[in-house]
Amino acid sequence: MSTRRKFLEKITATSVALPLLYSPVNLFAASEEPCEGPVLKVAIMGLGSYGTRVAEAMQACKRAKLVGVISGTPSKIKKWQSKYGIPEKNCYNYENFDAIKDNADIDAVYVITPNGLHKDQSIRVAKAGKHVICEKPMGVNAQEGQEMVDACKAANVKLLIGYRMHFEPKTVAVIKMRKEGKFGDVKFFQGQSGFTIGDPNQWRLDKELSGGGAMMDIGIYSINGARYMLGEEPIWVTAQETKTNPEKFKEGIDETIQFQMGFPSGAVANCLSTYNMNHLDRFFMTGSKGFVEMKPSTGYGPIEGKTHEGPLTQPHMTHQTLQMDGMAAIIYNGTAPIVPVDGEEGVKDMKIIDAIFKAAKTGDKVML
Amino acid sequence: MSTRRKFLEKITATSVALPLLYSPVNLFAASEEPCEGPVLKVAIMGLGSYGTRVAEAMQACKRAKLVGVISGTPSKIKKWQSKYGIPEKNCYNYENFDAIKDNADIDAVYVITPNGLHKDQSIRVAKAGKHVICEKPMGVNAQEGQEMVDACKAANVKLLIGYRMHFEPKTVAVIKMRKEGKFGDVKFFQGQSGFTIGDPNQWRLDKELSGGGAMMDIGIYSINGARYMLGEEPIWVTAQETKTNPEKFKEGIDETIQFQMGFPSGAVANCLSTYNMNHLDRFFMTGSKGFVEMKPSTGYGPIEGKTHEGPLTQPHMTHQTLQMDGMAAIIYNGTAPIVPVDGEEGVKDMKIIDAIFKAAKTGDKVML
Repeated sequence: MSTRRKFLEKITATSVALPLLYSPVNLFAASEEPCEGPVLKVAIMGLGSYGTRVAEAMQACKRAKLVGVISGTPSKIKKWQSKYGIPEKNCYNYENFDAIKDNADIDAVYVITPNGLHKDQSIRVAKAGKHVICEKPMGVNAQEGQEMVDACKAANVKLLIGYRMHFEPKTVAVIKMRKEGKFGDVKFFQGQSGFTIGDPNQWRLDKELSGGGAMMDIGIYSINGARYMLGEEPIWVTAQETKTNPEKFKEGIDETIQFQMGFPSGAVANCLSTYNMNHLDRFFMTGSKGFVEMKPSTGYGPIEGKTHEGPLTQPHMTHQTLQMDGMAAIIYNGTAPIVPVDGEEGVKDMKIIDAIFKAAKTGDKVML
Repeated sequence: MSTRRKFLEKITATSVALPLLYSPVNLFAASEEPCEGPVLKVAIMGLGSYGTRVAEAMQACKRAKLVGVISGTPSKIKKWQSKYGIPEKNCYNYENFDAIKDNADIDAVYVITPNGLHKDQSIRVAKAGKHVICEKPMGVNAQEGQEMVDACKAANVKLLIGYRMHFEPKTVAVIKMRKEGKFGDVKFFQGQSGFTIGDPNQWRLDKELSGGGAMMDIGIYSINGARYMLGEEPIWVTAQETKTNPEKFKEGIDETIQFQMGFPSGAVANCLSTYNMNHLDRFFMTGSKGFVEMKPSTGYGPIEGKTHEGPLTQPHMTHQTLQMDGMAAIIYNGTAPIVPVDGEEGVKDMKIIDAIFKAAKTGDKVML
């Protein structure tokens, strides 16, 4: 198992012991999304470790169902067919998946491939008339993200980004507290996102496929977190890059970047993105009336946290289960999640990533 | 009571309930300083709130004794005389304290006045042939600090800076762990130092007297902390200043500064200094083998913390009691504290503060 998977999985185990929490009542308690309505029939594109995780999580969904696969590996397709009862007619490869347009059994495709492939694949899905769910980061820069938004609009399909934290109960509770003014004027957000990445030959360390290093993969959690925690959009960024292992982290693959963001209210964020440190995955926010700290803050396992009012006690639910049911509600009921998960939301993060890379390279404060 | 005092005091109360810990055995358990030897006879210059705290803490000292005062307020002198049994001949004001050179009852003067006065007062003490203990920051810039170091050398007296954390048992234990390699290669330090300052008319918000705002007063804890936690000297700094209240925080008085430091090993530090946020006072460090988090990390009350090995359990002892006994051991026994508290140590912090102010002003990475 890769170090990355171990990191994100390490405290997921307990969720398995809580099957009763997945009742419809509990399932939507946090996100208040309706559990009534059509089922979203989904094909997963990319049957790697995260695709597998999503497929497993979808088995507990009430509103979303795994019905198809797109993969370049026939043996994987066979395995998934047998495991999830997927009919032959819903199986595609990367050459022929445009034919999905004629398949009424598939409503949406969840693109879970390397970042550098997202844009072209998502646009092909859109052109096939299917809703696009794209894993974060949506592409490798804001330009790509905007092309995806435009293509989905033109094709009249939804584009949703895999921001699973926007459905996570403790995260949702904290965002509600902030909206209700429980923290007073929010002033500071700190996000530390990172882990020590293993296998140097994985696609995440290949610029062509990943578009960048830690920032694209894990730093984006601190960027997106700063925005949903503070409830503002940054107006400037500064960044400092450190590379201790240029053999492993080649040109264009960031190892460690510290970055700061300034917000219109005067609030500031101080963040760390790294592929070379452990014991991170921490959010902290302080305001004039209170604080919140979360650690882990974005891992797959139970989020833990406390505020000035006490511990966050919302029960853990598998993030991807909530996300996929939530996305069905967005697509079929027009439900608005507490923080958007649409393409425009994705582009906002990509613009910030572009600015961080520029700031790290030039040493300049980059205005947004 | 000022907000500042409340902040630093808020969890000190428990220490009062632990008088038995102040046995000589426990007292030096952490710092391993000898408890045998001459008593350091100290005059305190500046009878404000922190001077009062030091005087109270010294009542539990084994190796240091409060014997004199220097103040511009006769009523304060009277009060201290009666409270601490200080003879008339050991009382001075700011005009006549050079005469202390003829007073064999006083070995050292602890300068606890506004920062902008430290340099001249410390040099006068040195010229009077007495050891100088100067509260941090030692002056308002590195130039002043160096002048103080030079003057004390020329006068053949010791110059020690009030770095109480260098004697604090949990802090000392963490530094030992780092030296023993328990954290592996240290990679990242995060320091968050700040509180919401009260009275806008206090000297700490007067550039002439303070030399700066939050950085001089509280940000210095993150600077010094980064150095003693990581065990390296920074080679570059970057900084971003934010001012939301220019009425209260006038020209030259920093409200909020985020700053980053890079170290020769590739380790990085990400810090926050502020007079406009609460719920801070946090240190975090991660290395290849483990981590430590401390919160509070530098307040007067019990430091709390944990590492990958578990909670830090060293008993709380009043920092200033340990500091003053420890300084007696340094002066009379030549004991080396785990991290220096001498003038050169102070100058290192002042050079970094100078560089942070420059980086914040110019936006440039400033090399050290």
